[in-house]
Amino acid sequence: MSNACLIIIGNEILSGRTQDKNLAYLAEKLNGVGVRLMEVRVVPDIEAIIVETVNACRAKYTYIFTTGGIGPTHDDITAASVAKAFGVKLYRHPEAEKLLRDSYATRDVELNEARLRMADVPEGATLIPNAATAAPGFKIGNVHVMAGVPRIMQSMLETVLPTLQGAAPMQSVSITTDLPEGSIADGLTTIQNSFADVEIGSYPHFVDGGYSTTLVSRSLDKSRAEAATLAIEQMIGKLGGKLLD
Amino acid sequence: MSNACLIIIGNEILSGRTQDKNLAYLAEKLNGVGVRLMEVRVVPDIEAIIVETVNACRAKYTYIFTTGGIGPTHDDITAASVAKAFGVKLYRHPEAEKLLRDSYATRDVELNEARLRMADVPEGATLIPNAATAAPGFKIGNVHVMAGVPRIMQSMLETVLPTLQGAAPMQSVSITTDLPEGSIADGLTTIQNSFADVEIGSYPHFVDGGYSTTLVSRSLDKSRAEAATLAIEQMIGKLGGKLLD
Repeated sequence: MSNACLIIIGNEILSGRTQDKNLAYLAEKLNGVGVRLMEVRVVPDIEAIIVETVNACRAKYTYIFTTGGIGPTHDDITAASVAKAFGVKLYRHPEAEKLLRDSYATRDVELNEARLRMADVPEGATLIPNAATAAPGFKIGNVHVMAGVPRIMQSMLETVLPTLQGAAPMQSVSITTDLPEGSIADGLTTIQNSFADVEIGSYPHFVDGGYSTTLVSRSLDKSRAEAATLAIEQMIGKLGGKLLD
Repeated sequence: MSNACLIIIGNEILSGRTQDKNLAYLAEKLNGVGVRLMEVRVVPDIEAIIVETVNACRAKYTYIFTTGGIGPTHDDITAASVAKAFGVKLYRHPEAEKLLRDSYATRDVELNEARLRMADVPEGATLIPNAATAAPGFKIGNVHVMAGVPRIMQSMLETVLPTLQGAAPMQSVSITTDLPEGSIADGLTTIQNSFADVEIGSYPHFVDGGYSTTLVSRSLDKSRAEAATLAIEQMIGKLGGKLLD
């Protein structure tokens, strides 16, 4: 299965001011085309750190995605940082500039130099056009550079998804029981040991003042995820537990 | 200013199934005691990756925090992985075991071997007791190992915060304007250049079908953040923009 790493670029996430909404969305969309998200890094708007992170990650994973830092303001340094990571220059991409000029010509807004900077991409990059905005993302090597605003990121991802070489997507089956984790842990270990091709995850919650537990079985083969879940259900029944909605 | 890195451990975050709620909470609490969150990594429940990540990060930052993977089930491998990262053994901490035994003695729930595993910590670790649950987190070196369930993580963090050596917290002032980023970008660059001790961040939104922009000024010196914000307000006024609530 192909794998992927997401690099979230932005002081606003690290300060706690903004709650990231792209991680979960990207994870599910990637899984849908058989690409597994294996790591996420959140880094500040500091060039040296972005360069180091992009280079460390692009050597390790099939696909890299970045979000954030591609707007027109001084703190948008992703394109320049990615160019530096690849050892190439930033240049004004003619097609990206045309996309911006065509869009702004229809609007009562000036296409100033700050906005034109959104057409600057690393040499060798290809554009990621999108339906949400005239300013494109771009791809260089295995790195896909996307916007941080969720609506724009999602639109860019629609352009990227058909280009990815994935495998079969992970299939997931989950149930929730009123039993706490500690009561099912031993039985769960036994089941996990007999289903080597299924990843069984156990996630505790507080519901109505008591514990409950969600058991997630994930496998490339849905029938195996279902078989593991059936075994978990039977174990829960033997322990006197109930299944919750 | 002391800095920190958060390592979020859990397949459920990387699959998109669960939305992390600890990052923003931790970031704001750390800033309150003058510790700056500089990086976040989300990694799967795979021992080799956790070991590598803990060792890479603990060498780089003042404080490391981990969340997730310290429950009683087979997929809770954080304690064993952190022990391996430090090259020490996992052992049953007598005080942690006592916390569990005292708590379960008052409840109609069996303290089985799976639950006792929550008293296993790396040699040399000190406990992070908390008000939410009998099972403690632990600290070894500069690494603080905490629960993934937000209520428990928050309780552990209350224990940890007074032990951190921070500096003055970052002070933040923000305003929002109806002008799009592209219209203020040039003026903003000029202001940023004259406020070297203030970090000015620009964050676009869609509001009522149009763009708006939030400008955040952050500085150790609140009067400088306020002065930068005043300069931004004046610039917005000159451009014919309005401030929004």
